[in-house]
Amino acid sequence: MPRGTKSDAGASLFILLGLSLDRDSSQPMSEQLSEQIATAISRGSLAAGTPMPSSRILADELGCSRNTVKAAFEKLIAEGYLVGVARMNTVVAERAPDSYFFAARTAVPAEVPPPTPAILSSRGARISTHRRPRCPQSARPFEIGHPESEEFPFEVWVDLYRSHWAKPRRVVIDSADPRGYLPLRSSIAQYLSTMRGLTCDAEDVIVTGGGFHAMDLFMRLALQPGDAVWIEEATAREIYALVEANGLLAVDVPIDEQGMVVAEGIRRAPHARMAIVTPAHQHPLGMTMSLPRRQELLDWATRSNAWVLEDDYDGEFRYTGTPLATLKSLDRDGRVIYLGTFSKSIFPSLRMGYMVMNSGLVSDFSSARDAIDLFPTMLEQPVMASFIGRGHFATHLRRMRQVYRERQSALLLAMREQLSGLIEIQPDETGLHLLGFMTPKLLRRMSLEALLTKAANAGIVLVPLKNFYRDGRDSAGLLLGFSSLPVGVIRDAVETLAALIAAAPANGGQA
Amino acid sequence: MPRGTKSDAGASLFILLGLSLDRDSSQPMSEQLSEQIATAISRGSLAAGTPMPSSRILADELGCSRNTVKAAFEKLIAEGYLVGVARMNTVVAERAPDSYFFAARTAVPAEVPPPTPAILSSRGARISTHRRPRCPQSARPFEIGHPESEEFPFEVWVDLYRSHWAKPRRVVIDSADPRGYLPLRSSIAQYLSTMRGLTCDAEDVIVTGGGFHAMDLFMRLALQPGDAVWIEEATAREIYALVEANGLLAVDVPIDEQGMVVAEGIRRAPHARMAIVTPAHQHPLGMTMSLPRRQELLDWATRSNAWVLEDDYDGEFRYTGTPLATLKSLDRDGRVIYLGTFSKSIFPSLRMGYMVMNSGLVSDFSSARDAIDLFPTMLEQPVMASFIGRGHFATHLRRMRQVYRERQSALLLAMREQLSGLIEIQPDETGLHLLGFMTPKLLRRMSLEALLTKAANAGIVLVPLKNFYRDGRDSAGLLLGFSSLPVGVIRDAVETLAALIAAAPANGGQA
Repeated sequence: MPRGTKSDAGASLFILLGLSLDRDSSQPMSEQLSEQIATAISRGSLAAGTPMPSSRILADELGCSRNTVKAAFEKLIAEGYLVGVARMNTVVAERAPDSYFFAARTAVPAEVPPPTPAILSSRGARISTHRRPRCPQSARPFEIGHPESEEFPFEVWVDLYRSHWAKPRRVVIDSADPRGYLPLRSSIAQYLSTMRGLTCDAEDVIVTGGGFHAMDLFMRLALQPGDAVWIEEATAREIYALVEANGLLAVDVPIDEQGMVVAEGIRRAPHARMAIVTPAHQHPLGMTMSLPRRQELLDWATRSNAWVLEDDYDGEFRYTGTPLATLKSLDRDGRVIYLGTFSKSIFPSLRMGYMVMNSGLVSDFSSARDAIDLFPTMLEQPVMASFIGRGHFATHLRRMRQVYRERQSALLLAMREQLSGLIEIQPDETGLHLLGFMTPKLLRRMSLEALLTKAANAGIVLVPLKNFYRDGRDSAGLLLGFSSLPVGVIRDAVETLAALIAAAPANGGQA
Repeated sequence: MPRGTKSDAGASLFILLGLSLDRDSSQPMSEQLSEQIATAISRGSLAAGTPMPSSRILADELGCSRNTVKAAFEKLIAEGYLVGVARMNTVVAERAPDSYFFAARTAVPAEVPPPTPAILSSRGARISTHRRPRCPQSARPFEIGHPESEEFPFEVWVDLYRSHWAKPRRVVIDSADPRGYLPLRSSIAQYLSTMRGLTCDAEDVIVTGGGFHAMDLFMRLALQPGDAVWIEEATAREIYALVEANGLLAVDVPIDEQGMVVAEGIRRAPHARMAIVTPAHQHPLGMTMSLPRRQELLDWATRSNAWVLEDDYDGEFRYTGTPLATLKSLDRDGRVIYLGTFSKSIFPSLRMGYMVMNSGLVSDFSSARDAIDLFPTMLEQPVMASFIGRGHFATHLRRMRQVYRERQSALLLAMREQLSGLIEIQPDETGLHLLGFMTPKLLRRMSLEALLTKAANAGIVLVPLKNFYRDGRDSAGLLLGFSSLPVGVIRDAVETLAALIAAAPANGGQA
């Protein structure tokens, strides 16, 4: 995958690799260039096999003549750094020559064998046990958790950035509030009140580096190692990982069509200190937590002074009907911490989210956060505040709801047309993926594993529902993400899926 | 201080408070405006006493007519939200009226008494014990730790931001590397090799949310609760706080003119798992760690499989002589973790820093970080990569070195002219503050506390050296930060200092 990153990024990496030519230098520019590329190669910043951009592109990026680049490439080919017949497909050599660059590096740490013991303590090892598959360069059908970033109004964003940072005010440069920048907290509070029906103050909001950072921060500061935590029995592995990373004990609590079965949680772990729930749209099963259950959960939390983390990971994307109020708005005793993120509504690489908790808790919490990493980076905070405050965020959400609604119906339709009786797809009013179940008929023809493999070979990712259960129970469920896939891609992928199922041995291998 | 923030930000807050007028709405714009301001006031986003901007400024910001704003102000004054005679000094009323906004809020969490127990577990409480004084809106003489942000080339930065984000490439939007964005890691490695003589690869670098985040991450992942950590006996309190926040035992190790006395560390805590040092420029005393001591420290680390955190917090700012190589460049066995930050070289609110460790360690480390908060925000990473890669960073550092050199000599000169024999100032080749000592002569005239108080009353902040010792030892040392102070301000402040000392009772109170 790192290799993947490199080659995908190849051409565009150059300008970022820090290649820069000094016109005033006595050294010819072509030599400066070949030297810098050679350095990048011997430093490992350019992996073996990385394709070079064309001399034209690189000349443009560096603002030098094409001949300068050609000369540099020729020198590097001569020296064995690059290989390739035609200039257009020059690539980094598999084994770079033993040049003075390596000589210069014989003494550096990277050359000595990595020390034993490994860096991680057992605390650290526990944190790193669950490895998350890296997010690919571009989403394949039907991966989950990829919002459509093509539609984001980057021009607007960049203009807002300029308006705040071209001639920044001191208040913006010097801000250092561990809770986050006040105007952003105000905008978030305003957004939650108007769009999510969650009335709160700027003083109730804490800006975080995304949903995971928020959960980690809360568990680290509010719970003790050994404390039990209720988890919905179907939950993303990353959540378990985070709970365990904080030395806590994750207790699975069953879920039914009304959401978490609170009574069962009380039976299994009455003294749990926290429950993590997705009441608006259970992840991954999709049900909404019923009002009685919400009340039960809040009553339990109040009685036992426990906390409830309300993870509203995709509440913005509801296509029909009206959303139920948040759990937080029912919370009379300040036991609920509401978690929101911009990862789905904007894109994950922004790494910005927020927590809403009673202002009474915020001050303790913010001084604790202050001790750990001071405060969230300021650069995007005023930008996001304006983006929300001036209505761009609301507009973007309206737009995306429309886009996702179309994609969701396209997926539903295609699945029904092509795979009815084989994969029963379950409609959903909310969210960025649909849930389908292999029918007994299909299961007689092929196992879940067989389907996953065939699909994977055809470039289609089907995330099995069983991945969300720790008890390894068998399930014929499949998650189908659609948010980052144009309607055409969705139709084609479903067709491919139908074809490879039709071609399965059971029916004589005929396509 | 929160109040401070608000009133300082007052005028400029408006646009960020999310005031936005809908020209197509049937509701008159002046009413929309008064309603939104009233909401902000009743939400507490606008504190009592906050001055309103002039109707002209606000009209400009909102792109509406001045009369619209005036009408809104009049309505708000009539309703009791604002008070003020002349329009120009309208301020938020001390007690906002009991309006329907409050009615709407009677049911929300913020209205109920904060729950007991407090949010923090004892783990959390330990983390939050040391509270850091908030960084003020603008630095007063002679506060420490404020780089000069006025000189930063914001225009260049904003242009680079646009070049990456106006039409972002997928590789930039989708990047999700817990180590940080490869081109940035390459730029940092290149910068360290050329500017700090630390040869390393992109593969050895991890991007973090600043120096504190890096230290916290490392201690959390590499050490166990209860592990002992060597600390230089004079160290910023925040470092102790962070060590204790991770359940570790901070062991003071004496420092002399050669830096940390390693032999004494071995005597006090032979089985310590880590040492935190500032070898380039001891913070706050300023000495450079000698080569023999560096060797001793590395030998100890290798023998006992311990780690050494090299905190190079202000290594970029050396004014004379040539810097000693980093400790990391002497490290043969991969025991040293090098910490760098952009907080001093750019500004603290960027919250970006980096760690250099052997690539053998990076993979474990990055998967652990991945489990905690996924990866650092992408938005500034390509920008910083270009900022470094295209030479802007080097240019900025050259410029700042010049600026700081001038300010440092101005401070030295003024202190010698005005306070020789009273405060002996110690020259320093590096850094953003100078260290001075009250002479016995001055101490006979006034105590350290008396001087601090008199100075504070005159608006001058003197950070006493004793704050950096945990054993509460008496010290007549004072830290004098100069980095954010124009030469004129420095001269005036020293004059004020001299005057208030001269006016001290001991010499008959004559000025």
